[in-house]
Amino acid sequence: QFRFEFLDMHPYDQAMFFMEQPKDSRMQIYSYLSPEEIGELMESIELEDIEVFFAEMDPRFASMVLAEMAVDNAVDILNELDKDQVVSFLTIMDKEAADEIKQLLHYEEKTAGSIMTTEFVALYQTQTAKEAMQRLKDRAPDAETIYYLYILDDDKRLVGVLSLRDLIIADENMRIQEIMSEKIVTVSVAKDQEEIAQMMRDYDFLALPVVDFQDHLLGIITVDDIMDVMEEEASEDYSRLAGVSEVERSDDNAFISAKKRLPWLIILLFLGMFTASLIGRFEETLDQVAVLAIFIPLIAGMAGNTGTQALAVAVRGLATGEYGKQGKTKLMIREAGTGLITGTVCGIVITVVIYLWKGDIFLGLLVGISIMATLIVATLAGSLIPIIMDRFKIDPAVASGPFITTINDIISILIYFGMATAFMNFLI
Amino acid sequence: QFRFEFLDMHPYDQAMFFMEQPKDSRMQIYSYLSPEEIGELMESIELEDIEVFFAEMDPRFASMVLAEMAVDNAVDILNELDKDQVVSFLTIMDKEAADEIKQLLHYEEKTAGSIMTTEFVALYQTQTAKEAMQRLKDRAPDAETIYYLYILDDDKRLVGVLSLRDLIIADENMRIQEIMSEKIVTVSVAKDQEEIAQMMRDYDFLALPVVDFQDHLLGIITVDDIMDVMEEEASEDYSRLAGVSEVERSDDNAFISAKKRLPWLIILLFLGMFTASLIGRFEETLDQVAVLAIFIPLIAGMAGNTGTQALAVAVRGLATGEYGKQGKTKLMIREAGTGLITGTVCGIVITVVIYLWKGDIFLGLLVGISIMATLIVATLAGSLIPIIMDRFKIDPAVASGPFITTINDIISILIYFGMATAFMNFLI
Ligand SMILES: [Mg+2]
Ligand SMILES: [Mg+2]
Ligand SMILES: [Mg+2]
Ligand SMILES: [Mg+2]
Ligand SMILES: [Mg+2]
Ligand SMILES: [Mg+2]
Ligand SMILES: [Mg+2]
Ligand SMILES: [Mg+2]
Ligand SMILES: [Mg+2]
Ligand SMILES: [Mg+2]
Ligand SMILES: [Mg+2]
Ligand SMILES: [Mg+2]
Ligand SMILES: [Mg+2]
Repeated sequence: QFRFEFLDMHPYDQAMFFMEQPKDSRMQIYSYLSPEEIGELMESIELEDIEVFFAEMDPRFASMVLAEMAVDNAVDILNELDKDQVVSFLTIMDKEAADEIKQLLHYEEKTAGSIMTTEFVALYQTQTAKEAMQRLKDRAPDAETIYYLYILDDDKRLVGVLSLRDLIIADENMRIQEIMSEKIVTVSVAKDQEEIAQMMRDYDFLALPVVDFQDHLLGIITVDDIMDVMEEEASEDYSRLAGVSEVERSDDNAFISAKKRLPWLIILLFLGMFTASLIGRFEETLDQVAVLAIFIPLIAGMAGNTGTQALAVAVRGLATGEYGKQGKTKLMIREAGTGLITGTVCGIVITVVIYLWKGDIFLGLLVGISIMATLIVATLAGSLIPIIMDRFKIDPAVASGPFITTINDIISILIYFGMATAFMNFLI
Repeated sequence: QFRFEFLDMHPYDQAMFFMEQPKDSRMQIYSYLSPEEIGELMESIELEDIEVFFAEMDPRFASMVLAEMAVDNAVDILNELDKDQVVSFLTIMDKEAADEIKQLLHYEEKTAGSIMTTEFVALYQTQTAKEAMQRLKDRAPDAETIYYLYILDDDKRLVGVLSLRDLIIADENMRIQEIMSEKIVTVSVAKDQEEIAQMMRDYDFLALPVVDFQDHLLGIITVDDIMDVMEEEASEDYSRLAGVSEVERSDDNAFISAKKRLPWLIILLFLGMFTASLIGRFEETLDQVAVLAIFIPLIAGMAGNTGTQALAVAVRGLATGEYGKQGKTKLMIREAGTGLITGTVCGIVITVVIYLWKGDIFLGLLVGISIMATLIVATLAGSLIPIIMDRFKIDPAVASGPFITTINDIISILIYFGMATAFMNFLI
């Protein structure tokens, strides 16, 4: 009766329930369910949490679970486990399943190969619609999707695609050749997963075929896995913008969190020391006009904020491929204009406010002009840095907000104290 | 021959080609292609760019294009056009298509209603598998997806779902009732699109049924539109973290960009003035120990950076629903721990560096202890603010990095100068 009620839930809900159980209840669940049923449940558990479950299962049972799972998901799980464990599972497993898994184990992370599955439905062009339908019925329980059929020639090269929608409409005696589509959009096996997600989104496909350089069909990538890729890539970019190098997890403890955040903080600490030594060089200026110090956070803060804005716009635009070749020059010109406008507006506002507050128009002008110059330079720096990284084939999303902020702190301090020193006579 | 080659491309590629053409070539394309073909092409064009194309088409032709498009996409386009234009298109259009569109026009933005389509395949449970297959063939050319069939009772309430995969395997004389699944996951018509995307990703569905509070089936949401939602929501969160209130587009000019960025900059300018006036209150301290000024950017910068890190971790965690009820308290405790560790490490490093550099252990300790206190408070502020917003049902992603940064600037200045003033005797 437990078995019955449990299986009545969607596998995702089963997984959520399973995750909340203590170890002995989990051991009971393993014994109540078949390897296939456990496999379905395991497919809904996040990879980071999965190791402990495969460690506590009977190894023979665990290897059966892996063999029953969608092969791409089994491979993802094995990639999380120890080498020794992987070898032992593959040795116990039946040969056919083990071979299919081994084929997929060695593709590089975040490439098409690492997210594809080999469980697709392939047909030959000389078959009829009726034969195709029959083949499909046989493959339906196992295939990752049956909604696209892939047509191969005698060398196993991909020559066409047929959607189940078109197959259903077709007369059952027609040959596949006549009803398949030859406009095939494929991805190469080494392609980056982020670009594949972009393609899937643009073309509205449910699956994309993965081929080698000779157009042999190696696997397919399905939309459900692409949704996970999109989430993963978005989290990654978001974390980087904030200067967290690795994505944190809700069950990380304070030490793990601190370890992930400290690298950036230490780098920034030393950059900050450099900024401090820069200001140190203007100590004479500061001694004479102590009031200068009070505007340091304002100017540095504005520089940091504008820079981060420009950075985010450029990174996002580059990531979604909105800018072509000339687009990047156009972006730079626009950013220069944007910096000029925001700089002028903020500069005027601050000049007026300081004049009203301190009654000193020179101080107002000094801060106002510094803000203007700072905003122009910071905006340009914020967009130029990701564009340069992109040109050198570095993912521009690596440029973090704190880094740009600190660079802009330094620039703004130089501008502000440089101007203050130059126009000292007006201030004292 | 142009027509032939053009139609041989995927609609997305057609759209890319079309977008690059000057107006007179576009006019020719309208005349070569049928409304249905133009409709398919228009579905691949981004909404922001579409207004001009519908304005330049003959209104009668344009309304035929809209009638031929997937109804959800037609509605999205009409939402971009002027009220007058919408009314005139709907008046010219054939009544059936116009009624279908009108039904969908009034749902609120970013809810299930605004992204669903009414072109689904519905069946009754008393029909047989064979009848279902026949119905499916009829609906295949028009339906948004034929891979899920929705089963209704006599009151049009949703009682089951049948995947085409299961239908194909089933014996053709079985009743739908016997083969359909009653574990239906539905979304309510007012549900936020971001939560729907999360569900789609968790459950790996290709479509989700949308129901009213009485379980009447109103429409379905398909995975291709959810991919667009995921991209849109990710861009939104990313932009907000950087303090750009609206997502910018590659063809915005400098004025539009500046207008989108200025609101935050102006707010931050005034917050910065407040920071300046705070430091102003410590002018006496500054006059006595001018060297204090040189560490202002370092301390404020570290506060801003840690705060942004904590913010990003909390917002991302809240958005993906990783934290339950107790999870949030646990997060706070962990962040306190993380702040303590990063604060202690950075505090010790900076104390040593300043001692070696300036030979003044008291100055080193002052800056070091300030950094430590600042990092603890800033980390807590960075995570507390989004958690509070979440509790008050405000999307925590609204909390932008620059805002947290500026709050933390203020906190850090108070800590630093407060301590400096208190321990003045050790410094001079
Ligand atoms: Mg994988
Ligand atoms: Mg990537
Ligand atoms: Mg799309
Ligand atoms: Mg998969
Ligand atoms: Mg999956
Ligand atoms: Mg990326
Ligand atoms: Mg239609
Ligand atoms: Mg819509
Ligand atoms: Mg939202
Ligand atoms: Mg999923
Ligand atoms: Mg749609
Ligand atoms: Mg679509
Ligand atoms: Mg959001």
